Amino acid sequence: MQVTKRLESHQSYSPGVQPDSWGSVIKLNTNENPYPPSPSVIEAVTKEISLLNLYPNPASMPLRDKISQLFGLDKKQVIIGNGSDDLLNLCVRSFSDDKLKVGMLDPSYSLYKTLVNVQGANLINIPFIDDEFTFDPKAISSSGANLFFLTSPHAPSGRSFSLQTLKKTAESFPGLLVIDEAYADFAAETALPLLNDLENILITRTLSKSYSLAGLRLGFAMGHPSIIAQLDQVREVYNVDRLAQAAALASLNDQNYFSICLEKILEQRQRLTNQFEAMNWRTIPSSTNFVFTQPCDANGVIGEKIALSLFEFLLQRKILVRYFPDHPLTNTFLRISIGKPEEMTILMDSIEKWKCPEKHL
Amino acid sequence: MQVTKRLESHQSYSPGVQPDSWGSVIKLNTNENPYPPSPSVIEAVTKEISLLNLYPNPASMPLRDKISQLFGLDKKQVIIGNGSDDLLNLCVRSFSDDKLKVGMLDPSYSLYKTLVNVQGANLINIPFIDDEFTFDPKAISSSGANLFFLTSPHAPSGRSFSLQTLKKTAESFPGLLVIDEAYADFAAETALPLLNDLENILITRTLSKSYSLAGLRLGFAMGHPSIIAQLDQVREVYNVDRLAQAAALASLNDQNYFSICLEKILEQRQRLTNQFEAMNWRTIPSSTNFVFTQPCDANGVIGEKIALSLFEFLLQRKILVRYFPDHPLTNTFLRISIGKPEEMTILMDSIEKWKCPEKHL
Repeated sequence: MQVTKRLESHQSYSPGVQPDSWGSVIKLNTNENPYPPSPSVIEAVTKEISLLNLYPNPASMPLRDKISQLFGLDKKQVIIGNGSDDLLNLCVRSFSDDKLKVGMLDPSYSLYKTLVNVQGANLINIPFIDDEFTFDPKAISSSGANLFFLTSPHAPSGRSFSLQTLKKTAESFPGLLVIDEAYADFAAETALPLLNDLENILITRTLSKSYSLAGLRLGFAMGHPSIIAQLDQVREVYNVDRLAQAAALASLNDQNYFSICLEKILEQRQRLTNQFEAMNWRTIPSSTNFVFTQPCDANGVIGEKIALSLFEFLLQRKILVRYFPDHPLTNTFLRISIGKPEEMTILMDSIEKWKCPEKHL
Repeated sequence: MQVTKRLESHQSYSPGVQPDSWGSVIKLNTNENPYPPSPSVIEAVTKEISLLNLYPNPASMPLRDKISQLFGLDKKQVIIGNGSDDLLNLCVRSFSDDKLKVGMLDPSYSLYKTLVNVQGANLINIPFIDDEFTFDPKAISSSGANLFFLTSPHAPSGRSFSLQTLKKTAESFPGLLVIDEAYADFAAETALPLLNDLENILITRTLSKSYSLAGLRLGFAMGHPSIIAQLDQVREVYNVDRLAQAAALASLNDQNYFSICLEKILEQRQRLTNQFEAMNWRTIPSSTNFVFTQPCDANGVIGEKIALSLFEFLLQRKILVRYFPDHPLTNTFLRISIGKPEEMTILMDSIEKWKCPEKHL
């Protein structure tokens, strides 16, 4: 047998480390929510177990109904995925091939590249125009891409883009603009209002971050019914299982719990940002559940070695954060997920020890 | 934006009807297990819910370990999928393209065709050589396919193929032979022994049927480590969620419950087969959890109209079975999943009424 040529030099996506049993790890490397999901999930899931011998609702209709109500949309504007990764993949499979190209901002979520490689399409990387991760809408509209992935709020920087910028981009772009709003619940703005006027936008969301369901794989996308219908054509028949549907529905129904957890995270994000700024560490204003900061050593020096040194110092203390060495815009920074208050305290204490080891001998 | 040309005339897969709330439906149309999953699933799943804020084990390693032990394999010979459909799709994506063709027996599981269409590869349909669903190994080996899907035991006929036939097929076929053993737990034989000698075989399984987990989407595949490594390259990073991993592990650990349910199903399969044969209905000897039978009316007449008439008669009584009108080998038959004893009794009573309505006025 032969492996298809498309995959000859393919490299699969590398997620952050997921330790199985490191004991008391402080896990701030994959932007998980530090709080468990809504208590109502237990009852919903338990009720569903006795029905597991039966196939799930193929289209996850009860979830489409709930989400369309939540966001004031028609249910034909919503599709559910096995994680938003599933939906990003459906976009690549529907709107790209050896002629139809895909674009992304570089750097952003590196899974886009993986999905495009598996499909055998060409990828267009659009660079940022400054080190504050500003992009030029014209660079996207004239990119020649048929499909463009725009992470907003952006990862790994955490910054947001204004609704005006997103609108301008979508209006001038002839292809499908996927606005990946994985972190939008932590931001002040969302691109949702644009759905009223523009047909070439798809907004993807996930319950992994803001709803504490990373372990469950539940994403959804919102857009024009014709786009949704196209993605449904390629979607696996039973892509979301019964327990995932039940747990997601229970979580979305418990908006009170959602708000409480969100508030705690935003509070710690502010605390962390303040502390980094007090140390004169350049820190991108975050609209997400992580902070992207540029560590300085005790002498105020920044650089790759400094960032890597802090990364390794924290790793030795079983504090996992994320370091992206492969891009000049990221290789002097660390990305740190927001955890519980006590985890943030331990993190800051450890950073203090790294900066001034002599004080802590 | 443009939809890729590959998908211009694409038709998505149509599963059997999945009623949400028909009240007391007797559901014998999608080969689900009539019994709930092992009671141990409840505890395993409940325990996992508090960890749902954390991503799952990306490769589902505890499940790979368990399955490799269960079947006496190395764990490098096992991969886990979001249903076996996920794994079939990974095969298509890895081993087909516009040059590398895919083959299947016609008729068999129609999802193969859907997956191949989405990929834009060419499909080769190999017909059976008689109406007992016998195939010619030479037709497969000389088909020119790089990847071949062989459903064994076969669906929708339910018949098995001998290990000798499968071996002969794999030995003479230059591509990857995927033996789709979705129903193998209900059969006397499996192709597993062939893994010792042949590197071009991949055996796929599902927990949907024999382990009562259709609602969960859990499949696995076993084959040479090089094939598994290739599929892992294309697999979505977190393709199987925490609850699915936990429930599957608990189910596989409860082999006692598995055997008890299996026994009950095999007993009802024998009962149903005997009753159809007593009525002189041609019935393919089943190695699955369904029976494929050719209904005769009271005058001993068979045909499309007869099969459709019984299908509709049962549907009116909320008994769902499956009718495949699109192929001359299937359009005079019905496929009936094995249910609980009381469901089989109601089914047989209804068939009796359909045959002799005057008796039941």
